[in-house]
Amino acid sequence: MIIVLKPGATKEQADELLSKIEKKGLKSLYMPGSERTVLGALGDERVLAELNFESHPLVESVKPILSEYKLVSREMHAHDTVVRIGKHSIGGDRFLVVAGPCAVETPEQMRDTAGAVKAAGAHALRGGAYKPRSSPYAFQGLGVEGLKLLRKTGDEVDMPVVTEVLEVADVDAVTEHADALQVGARNMQNFRLLTALGGCGKPVLLKRGMAASIKDLLLAAEYIVANGNDQVILCERGIRTFETATRNTLDLNAVPYIKQKSHLPVLVDPSHGTGVRDLVAPMARAAVACGADGIMVEVHRNPVEAWSDGAQSLFPKQFDGLMTSLRAIAQAVGKTL
Amino acid sequence: MIIVLKPGATKEQADELLSKIEKKGLKSLYMPGSERTVLGALGDERVLAELNFESHPLVESVKPILSEYKLVSREMHAHDTVVRIGKHSIGGDRFLVVAGPCAVETPEQMRDTAGAVKAAGAHALRGGAYKPRSSPYAFQGLGVEGLKLLRKTGDEVDMPVVTEVLEVADVDAVTEHADALQVGARNMQNFRLLTALGGCGKPVLLKRGMAASIKDLLLAAEYIVANGNDQVILCERGIRTFETATRNTLDLNAVPYIKQKSHLPVLVDPSHGTGVRDLVAPMARAAVACGADGIMVEVHRNPVEAWSDGAQSLFPKQFDGLMTSLRAIAQAVGKTL
Amino acid sequence: MIIVLKPGATKEQADELLSKIEKKGLKSLYMPGSERTVLGALGDERVLAELNFESHPLVESVKPILSEYKLVSREMHAHDTVVRIGKHSIGGDRFLVVAGPCAVETPEQMRDTAGAVKAAGAHALRGGAYKPRSSPYAFQGLGVEGLKLLRKTGDEVDMPVVTEVLEVADVDAVTEHADALQVGARNMQNFRLLTALGGCGKPVLLKRGMAASIKDLLLAAEYIVANGNDQVILCERGIRTFETATRNTLDLNAVPYIKQKSHLPVLVDPSHGTGVRDLVAPMARAAVACGADGIMVEVHRNPVEAWSDGAQSLFPKQFDGLMTSLRAIAQAVGKTL
Amino acid sequence: MIIVLKPGATKEQADELLSKIEKKGLKSLYMPGSERTVLGALGDERVLAELNFESHPLVESVKPILSEYKLVSREMHAHDTVVRIGKHSIGGDRFLVVAGPCAVETPEQMRDTAGAVKAAGAHALRGGAYKPRSSPYAFQGLGVEGLKLLRKTGDEVDMPVVTEVLEVADVDAVTEHADALQVGARNMQNFRLLTALGGCGKPVLLKRGMAASIKDLLLAAEYIVANGNDQVILCERGIRTFETATRNTLDLNAVPYIKQKSHLPVLVDPSHGTGVRDLVAPMARAAVACGADGIMVEVHRNPVEAWSDGAQSLFPKQFDGLMTSLRAIAQAVGKTL
Repeated sequence: MIIVLKPGATKEQADELLSKIEKKGLKSLYMPGSERTVLGALGDERVLAELNFESHPLVESVKPILSEYKLVSREMHAHDTVVRIGKHSIGGDRFLVVAGPCAVETPEQMRDTAGAVKAAGAHALRGGAYKPRSSPYAFQGLGVEGLKLLRKTGDEVDMPVVTEVLEVADVDAVTEHADALQVGARNMQNFRLLTALGGCGKPVLLKRGMAASIKDLLLAAEYIVANGNDQVILCERGIRTFETATRNTLDLNAVPYIKQKSHLPVLVDPSHGTGVRDLVAPMARAAVACGADGIMVEVHRNPVEAWSDGAQSLFPKQFDGLMTSLRAIAQAVGKTL
Repeated sequence: MIIVLKPGATKEQADELLSKIEKKGLKSLYMPGSERTVLGALGDERVLAELNFESHPLVESVKPILSEYKLVSREMHAHDTVVRIGKHSIGGDRFLVVAGPCAVETPEQMRDTAGAVKAAGAHALRGGAYKPRSSPYAFQGLGVEGLKLLRKTGDEVDMPVVTEVLEVADVDAVTEHADALQVGARNMQNFRLLTALGGCGKPVLLKRGMAASIKDLLLAAEYIVANGNDQVILCERGIRTFETATRNTLDLNAVPYIKQKSHLPVLVDPSHGTGVRDLVAPMARAAVACGADGIMVEVHRNPVEAWSDGAQSLFPKQFDGLMTSLRAIAQAVGKTL
Repeated sequence: MIIVLKPGATKEQADELLSKIEKKGLKSLYMPGSERTVLGALGDERVLAELNFESHPLVESVKPILSEYKLVSREMHAHDTVVRIGKHSIGGDRFLVVAGPCAVETPEQMRDTAGAVKAAGAHALRGGAYKPRSSPYAFQGLGVEGLKLLRKTGDEVDMPVVTEVLEVADVDAVTEHADALQVGARNMQNFRLLTALGGCGKPVLLKRGMAASIKDLLLAAEYIVANGNDQVILCERGIRTFETATRNTLDLNAVPYIKQKSHLPVLVDPSHGTGVRDLVAPMARAAVACGADGIMVEVHRNPVEAWSDGAQSLFPKQFDGLMTSLRAIAQAVGKTL
Repeated sequence: MIIVLKPGATKEQADELLSKIEKKGLKSLYMPGSERTVLGALGDERVLAELNFESHPLVESVKPILSEYKLVSREMHAHDTVVRIGKHSIGGDRFLVVAGPCAVETPEQMRDTAGAVKAAGAHALRGGAYKPRSSPYAFQGLGVEGLKLLRKTGDEVDMPVVTEVLEVADVDAVTEHADALQVGARNMQNFRLLTALGGCGKPVLLKRGMAASIKDLLLAAEYIVANGNDQVILCERGIRTFETATRNTLDLNAVPYIKQKSHLPVLVDPSHGTGVRDLVAPMARAAVACGADGIMVEVHRNPVEAWSDGAQSLFPKQFDGLMTSLRAIAQAVGKTL
């Protein structure tokens, strides 16, 4: 429920209403604006009805939040959220490029790849230390050593770093070393992990699950925000469909749709979204054109030798060419890259 | 099978080989080039093997066509096919915009809509006279009267016209009135219709079926080309997935993928691909950015009053704004619009 | 709209109401029952409202038909429809087994296969004379010669025959030779063909399209019934999903769901529904168990030599074993096989 | 790699080979049989090649395991695995029925429901204490109190209990109270959780993810078995497709397919697989008929009052009727229920 107060309502008066909301066991929100103060009350609809704020003298209007997701909806929060990752930002008119290898492998691989993506204009460095793999016999990542190597490489090239967290028990370690924590597609509905990330204090990059509807994705983001962390970036990375020519079907429809329904920034991952190196650049361009706030691209100093996802990783030279073409399209749609 | 002749092979010598191919009951192709003459032989692989051209003195090399589709593949034909629709073209660096209402309704609706899309810069006019509808109780189109009205309107505004053909029995009538014939998603594997369109002598716009893989689409195009008509435009219009926020899931991955595998031009239909008016413009921009050769957009002088597909039709003013933004992106990716 | 007349309403009085319905341009239905006469009126809802039958002295009650499909719904027609194919029936408690090769190939192949399936207890013989194939280079069926051979074989073994019709132009020929006409998955929304089959006078076996929702299937059946033919059998044959271990995903949920919503009989095709020989028998058993009214199974005298679909065709001995197990399950669910 | 020893090979000789396998860092398996001893070696294929066992004097034959999953495949282990849950079993010819409410709610709800399903013939009791919910505002389960209540109820009616575990940190608590631990669809690829369950010492019921291929499911099971726990039951519970008439599309094709490829028992959940109460019984019957080893059904003493999943929960009387019909079908397919 969104409660708009009358002009002139004071902080004290707002606090009085907020305390009424909390006494009912509901979640309260305080959103002061330049002209009006807006309060929020979230929880069971029958309890909300008991508040009876429609007739309260300080209240100008009350309206329900129609979507199942509340805090992440534009109904609740009309303006674009801008999320900072290190010294860079994503959201509003700021476009963010995250690039780097699928997995952290060796100091040399990280140094060479980071140098190349930085030179081409990427803002943040990616690299997996914990790798969720379908088979127990596949490379599972370097773990904490990988985290440290990613951090060290990021510091050397002066780039913030983004990496995946797999489990509640790892949240502290990943938070210590990373500037943003990624939740992978297979964990999008690992609600315990989402809840824990509500308290981590760092931005969270939440990837859409392979069979997750857009509503499912927004409700998963709601878990993180409702638990205290409003620095959430949504990531479209392809859904599973009958088409097998590509690894996944990148659902770019989701980008403008989410931008209408939610204030959170949307990033696109054309590497997993296609699974095919030659399709990454065209789909990255499409992502910018349809209104995405950023892209995340797998680049490896030599994809042929990559320990994982080599087939979808760009060569550094390809990434450099991609950045050039992205700038022209970003300008055409009013974004700064 | 692709047969590259040695330099200096004459037309007569080529004819001799072609006649051997035909005697085996295979389909032969003659493709003279500036440096080399290339021949093609299509049909049962065991019969192809009997030709024994590897050891022929005029033959430089022989290679199999690995894909199931042959004539539409880049293996057979490396250069982009350019298809002419009236005085406009699609393919290569030529970008084509087809716009107009879902269905032909009245003279006034056609005149107003055609005038608006022409003024905004569209090249060709669309409008359905035969409408395939899920329910027998829904509006099924004006039939031949609709065809005539579309033709008349196109002539008045000097635009070529594109319209759907539903059945073999209608091919002649539609061919008479239209500059290009559209095959709808539900008919993509109506092989009798495809075969008939092989002989119609006009360009065919072939829409991808809702559950058709890209390979299915290319094999459907192969039916048309193998039956004598190489003027085929492929159309991505969204596939059916679990996501219900949008009417279909526009599979833009298919655009750069098809451009790699086939020489045929690819057009995108963001109206059916999203089913939501506000998503049409962003996805049209994405289509240009990822390398599409054209778009087809539903526009109605007043979508609120449209007899069908109103929810996904643009207002003329929206279409005008879209065209402006498309030009900037087209330029960024090296296309002329 | 369903109009229940008061007890004692005469045929003449009913005719008066029916003529009012028709004068409005609506489709009328006359359904006399043992206790009450029920009328139906189908068409545009705004026109239906103008009838104002609620206040008519002969009318007991009026209720709208909520589903988009009308004639095929249980709302309109509560009792199971039983369709006769030759001397056999499907629907109600009658279970029908259709078996035979994918395609009609040779007199010997037909004779041997038909003899085997007849001996095992199959009721009707299948065999394709017109084959819709994804590739233009694949075997397309024997055409009219195939129809004649199928008919001849059926007569010899005293079995009714079922075969596919691909196009409006072939409806007469197929109707002449077959006891039931099959519409394939790719043609489920070929509305011209459905309309033509409304007048063919023989039962129609309508296969669900690969991306067709259950509602789409029922609306496609509505086309046939609304055009005059109420002898329609629905066929679940698998839908296209992300799973590639099987050729299609047989959606058996659809069987009890359709049985609730429609009075038409439902037949299951486990051959196309799985695409894998060893899965055909278990899924045929599942079909009986969940309430299907029949199955259609591909059997070939020697699947290894089949010209098409060999991988999913049963050996005659396997089919014989299947029939034995089906009888036990049919008995357990109250069906006669 | 499967290594078949020559007849007469002693345990000591086998140990020598096993130690060679382990020295290479590979996983070794010892499988003595009545006629032959079989060893297994799992891990990187290049390292496997270095073993050079083909020429070893004790070795009769060596063959690779072709599937990506090894321990769960029939290639490695030809006979059906039978898993014990309390005093009941699943697998081979033993059919297991798990029934109970979606969530543990109150002592009375549990007592009444457990009494009803026990009386109808169910073997094990289900009930969720930790509920993964799409929305953070939905009921999340009673937690440890729920576990205790489930245990107490199970003891009172003398039924083993099955309940879901959501996270690594809860494995110990759930293992303490439950006879089998369930992994939900959303956690099927929570590889940390799977790894932890490898050491829990109780059977694991692993549900297929909504977008998981059968191969993904078997690889997820491989994680549990490779980490020490071979008591795994696979559960088909419906996949996400374009069809929305049912909550999910129950993929019964998967049942006979998995039974061919793996020795693990397969259980079907028709409640989540359909999401519609009236479809649960027909699909449970289909599951038995196609070869499933068990079913899990949601039953509530009064579904109208259920705190979750009421629409798909059976009334006790419906469950009783279902059990009667299942017995007849089980007998027809040679299973004991």
